[in-house]
Amino acid sequence: MEILIMQNIMSSNQKLADENRLTFSKEKILVINIMASPGAGKTSVITKLLEYFNHNEIGIIEGDIASNIDAEKFEKMGIPVIQINTGGGCHLDANMIKTAFHSLAKTRFSMLFIENVGNLVCPSTFDLGENVKMVIASIPEGHDKPYKYPAMFQSADVILLNKIDLLPYMDFQKDLFIKGVGALNENVEIIEISSKTGQGFDFLVDWIKDRFSKAIILTK
Amino acid sequence: MEILIMQNIMSSNQKLADENRLTFSKEKILVINIMASPGAGKTSVITKLLEYFNHNEIGIIEGDIASNIDAEKFEKMGIPVIQINTGGGCHLDANMIKTAFHSLAKTRFSMLFIENVGNLVCPSTFDLGENVKMVIASIPEGHDKPYKYPAMFQSADVILLNKIDLLPYMDFQKDLFIKGVGALNENVEIIEISSKTGQGFDFLVDWIKDRFSKAIILTK
Repeated sequence: MEILIMQNIMSSNQKLADENRLTFSKEKILVINIMASPGAGKTSVITKLLEYFNHNEIGIIEGDIASNIDAEKFEKMGIPVIQINTGGGCHLDANMIKTAFHSLAKTRFSMLFIENVGNLVCPSTFDLGENVKMVIASIPEGHDKPYKYPAMFQSADVILLNKIDLLPYMDFQKDLFIKGVGALNENVEIIEISSKTGQGFDFLVDWIKDRFSKAIILTK
Repeated sequence: MEILIMQNIMSSNQKLADENRLTFSKEKILVINIMASPGAGKTSVITKLLEYFNHNEIGIIEGDIASNIDAEKFEKMGIPVIQINTGGGCHLDANMIKTAFHSLAKTRFSMLFIENVGNLVCPSTFDLGENVKMVIASIPEGHDKPYKYPAMFQSADVILLNKIDLLPYMDFQKDLFIKGVGALNENVEIIEISSKTGQGFDFLVDWIKDRFSKAIILTK
């Protein structure tokens, strides 16, 4: 079988991402960039996490092609949120985050969730200046995702395996998923969760708090 | 709430797509471009469809960032298949299809399935010269997808609502999904299917055969 290799050139936004990183560090904010396929559960994970943190510690940047369905949900909960509509663009970039953060920073918060555009491809190559790249995979997507979308899993600081409650109903081979991730990203933490049942969230919250402590110590 | 509109510019590949369309028409081949999120079931739908057609009538172009897992499955079944690895690119384009078709056209077939890169964003704006844009949505992704990824649903000639067997286990509001699609694409057919149970495939196959007849009549 013939395999064609065709490359696209993507422009770098590294300089702006580094500026963002410096800003976040000065402001002592932990920034988590959440990336996943459409429907893997980015919004549900953030919503569930809000049960574990003081709402006045949290800010949210919502990235979508169109609509502000998710941002409206968070606004109703009283969380400072800003919606970025990319108008067709398949990922957030550091410049978008810089602009959105400038608007959002009128309020105080110490943890910023960035919900990226639902896409397992493009967001992986755009550094936003975040502290944590959080990738969500979900059981119904299948265990072969690390093999087919390697860049995303390679770049992750933590991988959430969501909708774990659906495991009994699906042909998902967890060992193959873990093996696929391990080949790309040896030491990454894989946390099994369910936003529906709450499974795994105690562990996830501890993981985030630990990262928060480390980030703050680093910026002292 | 502030909403930022940020646009990316995407280059056009219309000329090459039109050339492909002419080629497919001359060769009397129905070309179906299958687009969906990662894990929505593109490969499973093709695999199930193969039960309904003569294998020597089918050709397949497999698009992936990396790996050739799916192409290998089809090759083992004796189907002419060519793998395109985009090396990070988030969609197939008309030039990739032109090159792949040239290699594949050494064998004869009358229907070509193109499995696009798993992505609900980028592939929608790239015409490949296909006859049918087939979009697969799946129950676990949630009913809000037409609202959040409008371009994809707007461009579809047919929408498959896959994994319908999971409906009892999920909070999927079908009426909201249908309403969302209807607002974007008034006359598009939505076909409920399950690649696992086979539900809806008789109807889907009739739909494809009807499109095939029309395409061949048009090229007489």
